[in-house]
Amino acid sequence: MTKRSTQHETFTIERFYPQTPETVFAAFADEAIKRRWFVEGEGWAIEEYTLDFRIGGFERSRFRFKDGSVVTNDTVYQDIVENERIVLAYWMSVDGQPLSASMTTIELKPEGTGTRLTYIEYDVFFEGLDTPESRESGCRALLEALAATLDA
Amino acid sequence: MTKRSTQHETFTIERFYPQTPETVFAAFADEAIKRRWFVEGEGWAIEEYTLDFRIGGFERSRFRFKDGSVVTNDTVYQDIVENERIVLAYWMSVDGQPLSASMTTIELKPEGTGTRLTYIEYDVFFEGLDTPESRESGCRALLEALAATLDA
Repeated sequence: MTKRSTQHETFTIERFYPQTPETVFAAFADEAIKRRWFVEGEGWAIEEYTLDFRIGGFERSRFRFKDGSVVTNDTVYQDIVENERIVLAYWMSVDGQPLSASMTTIELKPEGTGTRLTYIEYDVFFEGLDTPESRESGCRALLEALAATLDA
Repeated sequence: MTKRSTQHETFTIERFYPQTPETVFAAFADEAIKRRWFVEGEGWAIEEYTLDFRIGGFERSRFRFKDGSVVTNDTVYQDIVENERIVLAYWMSVDGQPLSASMTTIELKPEGTGTRLTYIEYDVFFEGLDTPESRESGCRALLEALAATLDA
């Protein structure tokens, strides 16, 4: 019988983007733009990506790094305030093994002609299968990929 | 324009139930039993209650206290380990106005012939429309209603 455990952690990331809140928000709301920074990456094979961006709507990602494990990320949107706030819950698994459940709050505020993004995440890791350090570093990399997509 | 704000809080409740983990788990998994302690209560009119208890499944509650406001609670299940663990994300609104988004971890451990239940909740309250004290007290009342249903 598997020994069950949960580890609860939270972290916050702040970032400035030179684009307006409207442009940054669209990079979360538009399936084609979000796919670019959220799931496309060198060496990753995307097996599925769909986004239904509305309260109660699902986002589903299934991808594989080279010949490695299949990673799934299922998301549901809990709150959306256009150009201002996105709150979502997501859960990940690797080869069908649940890894974690999380909730993320993203707030966008105008700063000069750009946007101050505050990203607050709460994670519950299952059976020690992932670490807070690795998750935070993955989220920082995604917000960096978002910057590259916005700048392109 | 509405002034946006979020308040992030967490609380933990521990409770002992004299019933087995299998019986306590069933009170979360079975729609008829859960309806009894989760939405039925004196003075409350239930407008909708459905439970699809599986990972990625929804639970939807819509109820009204006497002639008061319509409260909705939408839930999605993020992780389920039979008789051991339930992780869910939920979001509430009153008359269509979003109130909060939350994530709850429920762990069941055998203790003697009964069950030790640990309930850990993380809440994000929107625009000051609800308070941590009121939410925690509501959750304690639900876990008390669960005890009454289990004892009946």
